[in-house]
Amino acid sequence: MLKLVLLRHGESVWNRENKFTGWTNVPLSDKGVKEAKDAGKLLKDKGFKPKLAYTSYLDRAIKTLWLALEEMDMMWIPVYKTWRLNEKHYGNLQGLNKAEMAEKFGDEQVLLWRRSYDAPPPPIPDDDSRHPKYDPRYADLKPEDIPATEALKNTEERIVPYWKSDISKSLKEHKEVLVSAHGNSLRGIVKYLKDMGEDEILKFNIPTGIPYVFEFDDDLKLLKDYFIGDPEEIKKLMEQVANQAKKK
Amino acid sequence: MLKLVLLRHGESVWNRENKFTGWTNVPLSDKGVKEAKDAGKLLKDKGFKPKLAYTSYLDRAIKTLWLALEEMDMMWIPVYKTWRLNEKHYGNLQGLNKAEMAEKFGDEQVLLWRRSYDAPPPPIPDDDSRHPKYDPRYADLKPEDIPATEALKNTEERIVPYWKSDISKSLKEHKEVLVSAHGNSLRGIVKYLKDMGEDEILKFNIPTGIPYVFEFDDDLKLLKDYFIGDPEEIKKLMEQVANQAKKK
Repeated sequence: MLKLVLLRHGESVWNRENKFTGWTNVPLSDKGVKEAKDAGKLLKDKGFKPKLAYTSYLDRAIKTLWLALEEMDMMWIPVYKTWRLNEKHYGNLQGLNKAEMAEKFGDEQVLLWRRSYDAPPPPIPDDDSRHPKYDPRYADLKPEDIPATEALKNTEERIVPYWKSDISKSLKEHKEVLVSAHGNSLRGIVKYLKDMGEDEILKFNIPTGIPYVFEFDDDLKLLKDYFIGDPEEIKKLMEQVANQAKKK
Repeated sequence: MLKLVLLRHGESVWNRENKFTGWTNVPLSDKGVKEAKDAGKLLKDKGFKPKLAYTSYLDRAIKTLWLALEEMDMMWIPVYKTWRLNEKHYGNLQGLNKAEMAEKFGDEQVLLWRRSYDAPPPPIPDDDSRHPKYDPRYADLKPEDIPATEALKNTEERIVPYWKSDISKSLKEHKEVLVSAHGNSLRGIVKYLKDMGEDEILKFNIPTGIPYVFEFDDDLKLLKDYFIGDPEEIKKLMEQVANQAKKK
């Protein structure tokens, strides 16, 4: 049996302030640090022994992975970082408060920007210093791969090729693999693995810091998927994520 | 110009207790954590921007690297881990106090074990649970590569091939490279790069947490090497390392 664990990074400083973050590189909050450590402890308790791990280029996912690996006594395993696991790019909304935006544009428009499968938010202007082309992390990317905004569709389109070329192959070879990433980049993987429709993924919320396990047979046929932790707690956390974009 | 920075991990819990550590996986002390962060701040101030980094399979070197990269805002760069950068294996002395050993066997014998180029300490017995063959980190190594003890000569012999096959090639390609490792594994690299004699390397001490810079021309000809930091402070730290094996 093959086992993939997806881990959404713990709360960041901007999650706490309810801001659109996207590719902005904000650190974990104290709560986020605790969530990451707790996830590591839980994975250790469950006997999960990944042979390698993947994460994004963004500090909050990397730090979540590092903290979890430290708890698991697995700091030494290979870690591969890729921009393809970055959060969905939120374009010109990055840095704006979600509740304020909801009051200004209405719940509908904000939910669309956050969750529509194919409607991207307004792009970051080309000469704006927040544009990822000015960030050394992305200096080696092809210009056409560097987004100024993304819909979930675009996020999925950059993740699925990496799933096929790298993560799925590692999983077949090494049996147990850990991926630490973001709400929407993980959603891109989940949609693909569970063959979800656009409406279904729109309503599917991944709570922070709760390990999400996918079990496959040796031919990568999905057998089952489940969150690890207290079911009532997980339900509450998923509802919290869904409610973030509603008006105060 | 090519720039290599060697960083010896900050103080570990066993450095503080003056014990032979070797491949034992002990964490950094609070002082070691501070040393690692300070090294990161210093490297950032000096404008050092490694494109990638190397470290060992041992937590204290990995954690030192992670803490330094966090201070440098470089958490996202690729990190390669290898058992070849592990500390010298101290055989059956691992876990014993250096000063106690010096009282029992005399300064000469302990200095020989610590610093002789080719006299290894007594090996860890084959059925001892401390033997690295029982550690999952080394499960994929060839049995003949797993040491039960090492002299500095053996440590150098496993590091130099990795320098040639990996680190030196990365340096040529990417210009700036960071290596976070251990007193004796870094000594193996230094001896090779500076073409030192056995006596010379025996007397050469690398202080913890002080970045050690090697500058090369584009053909990997060594131009100069120097520590970064206050010269008086560095001299003091080097003497401390040299005195660790003397009687109390």
